[in-house]
Amino acid sequence: MFRPQIKVVDCTIRDGGLTNDSHFALEMVQAVYRAICAAGVDYVELGYRNSKKLFPPTEFGPWRFCDEDMLRKVTDGVDPNGTKIAVMQDAHKAVAEDVLPADESVVDMIRVATYVKDVDKAIHLARNATDKGYECTINIMAISVEGSHFLDEALQQMEEETDALAVYVVDSFGALYSEEVHELVAKFKKHLKTKEVGVHFHNNQQLAFANTIEGIIKDANFVDGTLYGLGRGAGNCPLELLLSFLKNPKFNLMPVLETIGHTILPLRREIDWGYHIPYMVTGMLNQHPLAAMKWMKCDQKHEFVTFYNEITDDLE
Amino acid sequence: MFRPQIKVVDCTIRDGGLTNDSHFALEMVQAVYRAICAAGVDYVELGYRNSKKLFPPTEFGPWRFCDEDMLRKVTDGVDPNGTKIAVMQDAHKAVAEDVLPADESVVDMIRVATYVKDVDKAIHLARNATDKGYECTINIMAISVEGSHFLDEALQQMEEETDALAVYVVDSFGALYSEEVHELVAKFKKHLKTKEVGVHFHNNQQLAFANTIEGIIKDANFVDGTLYGLGRGAGNCPLELLLSFLKNPKFNLMPVLETIGHTILPLRREIDWGYHIPYMVTGMLNQHPLAAMKWMKCDQKHEFVTFYNEITDDLE
Repeated sequence: MFRPQIKVVDCTIRDGGLTNDSHFALEMVQAVYRAICAAGVDYVELGYRNSKKLFPPTEFGPWRFCDEDMLRKVTDGVDPNGTKIAVMQDAHKAVAEDVLPADESVVDMIRVATYVKDVDKAIHLARNATDKGYECTINIMAISVEGSHFLDEALQQMEEETDALAVYVVDSFGALYSEEVHELVAKFKKHLKTKEVGVHFHNNQQLAFANTIEGIIKDANFVDGTLYGLGRGAGNCPLELLLSFLKNPKFNLMPVLETIGHTILPLRREIDWGYHIPYMVTGMLNQHPLAAMKWMKCDQKHEFVTFYNEITDDLE
Repeated sequence: MFRPQIKVVDCTIRDGGLTNDSHFALEMVQAVYRAICAAGVDYVELGYRNSKKLFPPTEFGPWRFCDEDMLRKVTDGVDPNGTKIAVMQDAHKAVAEDVLPADESVVDMIRVATYVKDVDKAIHLARNATDKGYECTINIMAISVEGSHFLDEALQQMEEETDALAVYVVDSFGALYSEEVHELVAKFKKHLKTKEVGVHFHNNQQLAFANTIEGIIKDANFVDGTLYGLGRGAGNCPLELLLSFLKNPKFNLMPVLETIGHTILPLRREIDWGYHIPYMVTGMLNQHPLAAMKWMKCDQKHEFVTFYNEITDDLE
């Protein structure tokens, strides 16, 4: 039943960090790391390795930088059980010099997030990562607005100029339907003869898990999830649903369920991620969720028609 | 872009009534009815027409019976704008005599819900409905556990012995994945040469909307949704997502968004529908959600591993 080539990446701390400027308590990150290792998930992404010049450490929490000593506080004394550690670098907000040689780091994989326009920065960071001994992926964000031939060019460049393991379809806006997922994964596969395709979806239209399944059906072999869907705005593909679907006997769902109950659900007192109408509206209109995130904090947040009209007026 | 044959049924009051024994306030039902009419949705299902002998009216609210005078309190003075009224009869819990001739009723369509084992009761109620002048559908519940040849027999009987407009795939347990939806809709279409196929999905695995799309792709032309997914357990396909996907210019999303903000979200103070881990567990295990609904009311409701173990122990 299961496809052993499929690699699952938990990005709870990294994507969830976009809800609170990466200010998770160390104990929370430790609990998530222990659960992901115990569950036998392939990778756990513990945050960003972004530039401290662009993200002031007075303002952003430690998981925006993932200094090696912070990561060791998370990993020390825990049996990794085969789980590898990833961090993300934003192509336009990170520098190569922040990455140590791999044999001096607890990190196993660097994931480079990029827009199509920043493809050359992304390739630079991807080569830096593999040159220094890391595994690497490149994650193309906002893919629902990247229809031009520059996407094809970028994919071909990534294929020819990097040793990335995989290149990701990232639906930052939560705008895609299944038929679009099928087309995008097929397009990626056409260019990426020596690499895998990855998929990372957001839940604005309650399609993050469903679209992940559709990516898998079209042979995407790197798939992202987060515990209970924790993540920016409407959140992500819930890891618990993904593991249950995949049926790989190496996965153990129990540490995931336990940690959702004990560690993730209590966060809802401060963070209101998940399906909400403003996120649905930006998703259906193929817009960045930022306006919806702001609206969710205003006094009239349930006046959805007003929000819809503001968004569509801005588009005219 | 849109397929004009597709008929949308809002079943907010009917399916939502399974969360509170159909005890919605009249004003709430009026607000939903006005919104669905203003939105141009094809049908609105205002509750059940079930037997008062099996459901004591001292215990169950008026939307379990939908007496004609109650329905008129909802519809009086509202422009239906093309929206037709449906009520549901459970094949094993309703009687033919409770259905007036259609020209004495405000109801346009009777939907008969049935298990495969009750097919002959369902056909009796369906013929009663069409004989009395109503439109009719037959909705086959718990379809994820109906794999036997009796399903094929039942479909063939419905095709040959009734004038139902459509026969529905109803995933009561929220257990189906997209490939199973494709197979079921194809199987239904094979038998139902003169009828449409309908789809009704639950959100235990966050797939209710996604599976509705997959049904539509396979030519299901009757599709169910509810406002903000209100419904039993994990709830249903959210009507707002469905209308946005369908792109039929006759639909107006604004009354739907407004009523979600003003009428549906306030219900969350009393009803906790939507995605929760116990519902996910019964969905992934292809079990009735009843145990999960009970668990959601207990003191240790976040001890998901305990719940999982109880459910799986019961299965052994």
